[in-house]
Amino acid sequence: MVILTLNCGSSSAKYQVYDWDNKDVLANGVVERIGIDGSGITHKAKGNKTEIKSPCPTHKEAIELILKTITDKEIGVIPDMSVIKAVGHRVLHGGDKFTKSVLITPEVLDTFRSVIDLGPLHMPANIMGIEAAQKVMPDVPHCAVMDTAWHQTMPEETFMYAIPREWYTKYHARRYGFHGTSFLYTAKRASVLLHKAPKDTNLIICHIGNGSSMCAVKNGQCYDTTMGITPLEGLVMGTRSGDIDPALPFYIMRKTGMTADEMDTALNKKSGCLGITGRFSDRRDIEIAAAEGDKQCQLCIEMEALRIKKYIGAFMAELGHVDAIVFTAGVGERGPITRFKACSGLEKYGIKIDAQKNDWSFTGNAETCISADDSETKIFVIPTDEELVMTEDAYALMKGTYDVHTNFTYSFQDPSYVNKAREEGLKKDLEKRPHLADVIVRP
Amino acid sequence: MVILTLNCGSSSAKYQVYDWDNKDVLANGVVERIGIDGSGITHKAKGNKTEIKSPCPTHKEAIELILKTITDKEIGVIPDMSVIKAVGHRVLHGGDKFTKSVLITPEVLDTFRSVIDLGPLHMPANIMGIEAAQKVMPDVPHCAVMDTAWHQTMPEETFMYAIPREWYTKYHARRYGFHGTSFLYTAKRASVLLHKAPKDTNLIICHIGNGSSMCAVKNGQCYDTTMGITPLEGLVMGTRSGDIDPALPFYIMRKTGMTADEMDTALNKKSGCLGITGRFSDRRDIEIAAAEGDKQCQLCIEMEALRIKKYIGAFMAELGHVDAIVFTAGVGERGPITRFKACSGLEKYGIKIDAQKNDWSFTGNAETCISADDSETKIFVIPTDEELVMTEDAYALMKGTYDVHTNFTYSFQDPSYVNKAREEGLKKDLEKRPHLADVIVRP
Repeated sequence: MVILTLNCGSSSAKYQVYDWDNKDVLANGVVERIGIDGSGITHKAKGNKTEIKSPCPTHKEAIELILKTITDKEIGVIPDMSVIKAVGHRVLHGGDKFTKSVLITPEVLDTFRSVIDLGPLHMPANIMGIEAAQKVMPDVPHCAVMDTAWHQTMPEETFMYAIPREWYTKYHARRYGFHGTSFLYTAKRASVLLHKAPKDTNLIICHIGNGSSMCAVKNGQCYDTTMGITPLEGLVMGTRSGDIDPALPFYIMRKTGMTADEMDTALNKKSGCLGITGRFSDRRDIEIAAAEGDKQCQLCIEMEALRIKKYIGAFMAELGHVDAIVFTAGVGERGPITRFKACSGLEKYGIKIDAQKNDWSFTGNAETCISADDSETKIFVIPTDEELVMTEDAYALMKGTYDVHTNFTYSFQDPSYVNKAREEGLKKDLEKRPHLADVIVRP
Repeated sequence: MVILTLNCGSSSAKYQVYDWDNKDVLANGVVERIGIDGSGITHKAKGNKTEIKSPCPTHKEAIELILKTITDKEIGVIPDMSVIKAVGHRVLHGGDKFTKSVLITPEVLDTFRSVIDLGPLHMPANIMGIEAAQKVMPDVPHCAVMDTAWHQTMPEETFMYAIPREWYTKYHARRYGFHGTSFLYTAKRASVLLHKAPKDTNLIICHIGNGSSMCAVKNGQCYDTTMGITPLEGLVMGTRSGDIDPALPFYIMRKTGMTADEMDTALNKKSGCLGITGRFSDRRDIEIAAAEGDKQCQLCIEMEALRIKKYIGAFMAELGHVDAIVFTAGVGERGPITRFKACSGLEKYGIKIDAQKNDWSFTGNAETCISADDSETKIFVIPTDEELVMTEDAYALMKGTYDVHTNFTYSFQDPSYVNKAREEGLKKDLEKRPHLADVIVRP
């Protein structure tokens, strides 16, 4: 039995094919340039990567291309479509309507359409992807896994803004939070590593990638998060500003004559690391330039790390006690400089990062512990696995065994859980970085 | 010798007359409704309050009214204007041009005019007030004391935003911070109470009033603050939103058709406590309604306190070690509910508020300590005195003895310093609240 997961953006469709019986990833890849000249698929399976150009005027052709590729006699991984028993779709925004993943019905799709305004960049593509997949695979249950669902346990005092109340009652303006699937996975894994039940676990999770957000987890549930009504609020990101004075955009609009739409684009696409450095959003480029003496890149690293540190402090205060700080996603997994700056100087509060261990932790294929042995709060690096959550949710929804995460136990909550594909990758990582072995943590 | 201080708003002019030789406040008051029908002065001196109606079409008439009143044979406090030896003017915004108070020259006034766009609500009135006072008192040195000057020690990583760099280089968009004069006063006093030199003191100061902001003081200097390029950013305030997703205003403008100016007004005048409760900005009204069961008022109290608590945590992380948390201004001095909620649950981090002491501390006339005896970080309530800083700055500028605060010692840094007017007020407070005596702290 195979579970397919899909993540449709405006011009792309990412996929993963998961062999449920053997608990193993068979293939993954992406169709790019949907609706644009030069579209095609990049398919990874059995250690090989294949690129095939093929016109995809809409998401329907993209999904047909995915299915054709994964069932291909040569590069495919399944004999035919009939082995696909469920499809899990990533959906950015569920508004405040969904506290967990759902089987997609016409009513659910209508609800997604009703919150398009809350995610205008992502929701139309998410919906198109679902509609196209339903057409191509009409007899399989389709499930929606929302980035916002995890955050629905936030109390009013953390999700409300201090704005005119009718903006909430009429227009649903509140903090939603994103990256929920990643927070769910890493929170559950942190509990496993701590040998604690999720309900007894307080965490600060830092999902630091091109888009970044943090989550305060109280008793295993989301209590607060840095992103807001949109993914613009909070941390310094690749191209997003994160927190600024809400009056700043209006000041700049008065000075420059920029329109509201131009400002929206500037804050989402031309700010963050790109805005500070003037040329890079990729932190690897920034670290290299900073090491070569580029002042703006040096400032960028300080600013990004300091923002994370301020939210670590804010969430420490909200939680009162923190079992572990968790880093995940691209920069979280492979950004020792940012991790070190964000966590240093917190010794008085029971948080002690080990500089050496932190340097040794550089992999997406293993869980590591980078805090000092006598640190009261552990610091873990846990590679995220959103696709696995999507796969398990889709499977459980199909089987009728699914429930909200506080009443559901995922396979990866078993101390003996092993990600087979990562174990393979880890072998190669250890050849390059033997000291990685000294920081790997297993339950 | 007398020093006059002036604080001119768009339709008001506040003043204080200070007897330098006896170190005592002779009178203070306010002219209201400048440029509007029904203008007049409210004058407080010698324990009496007098109200006089008098037309004030411009700030010039308002300042003439002040001078006429304070030299009046019956209700006045000085024989004639010649005893006024210097005037201190409060100025909202000095941009990044001033690190300390200055004698006002034509060049300085030009600089203020160049930053009007950074404080469009306050700067025109501040400038009009200076020009009017210079006309009426041409032979006296006029000095400017800026709310932003204290914050000029912030390093780049705390004052820069993650926005396109040219918004900073061309339009000076950066964090400035406000309430600097209040932070200076309370920071110096906290050092006195701690028996430490300012340069050895780390503080978190919470100036909580109708407008509210917080300051992280590292080694006696401002390291970070919650307000930004304008006074809108940061805490939940009486009518200001503080922090929100920067995309939220644009979302609401699309939904409602509001203009940028209307949005600016809504975020500054109809948000914060007023927005949450739908009816109150005064915290006393909110506390009464909350006690009577009003859910929105209860939420408002939680939200305001939680925002303060998050910044306490953020600043704890930035500072690494905190000698004291200081509360000041209206709510800071007389808001035990907000103080308690903001400081509770921080015991793991060395911060322990004493509920009983906190309840007993309710006065603008004495410094109190509300932390538990075994709290590593002290919690002080220190009534602010911005006028005294303005007075001393103006005196020292006139005498040529003034320098930036790190090289200058104020009279109130002397452990034997006593505010005479407050000692009088304290007697009355103690009659009403005898337990106040148990929390008063003296150097």
